[in-house]
Amino acid sequence: MYKATITVRLKPSVLDPQGSAVKGSLHSLGFAAVTDVRIGKTMEVWISATESAEAEQKVDEMCQKLLANPVIETYDYELEGA
Amino acid sequence: MYKATITVRLKPSVLDPQGSAVKGSLHSLGFAAVTDVRIGKTMEVWISATESAEAEQKVDEMCQKLLANPVIETYDYELEGA
Repeated sequence: MYKATITVRLKPSVLDPQGSAVKGSLHSLGFAAVTDVRIGKTMEVWISATESAEAEQKVDEMCQKLLANPVIETYDYELEGA
Repeated sequence: MYKATITVRLKPSVLDPQGSAVKGSLHSLGFAAVTDVRIGKTMEVWISATESAEAEQKVDEMCQKLLANPVIETYDYELEGA
């Protein structure tokens, strides 16, 4: 059993309206020192696999097929035995 | 300038319908080896501060006030000079 912690982020060139809204809210709350906010997703996926190479290949495939939109997002992940 | 990478996750006891939906979609795509999926948020916040202790305190405060809902979520973060 492996656990993959996948982080999906918007590419730096892509506008992040959610991040801008959070930045605005933080400023309203008095956090004037905040200069930028970017928001992404984190996904924890548990996979039953016997080898880490097999799990890694599956994680890559599911990121490309479903979990990330390669046009506007990038992903990275960490794999650990669970 | 510091960059905080904040991860907000649902507490383990809280149901995650979004994760269940993603798990269902992964199964439909043929990833039968996936046993569970949990979804959270990742936030990158850039803060102008002179000391890491100051930045840390601010990040804790903004997590408690806005970024995480302590009733159903937990947060952790990494701070790095940027």
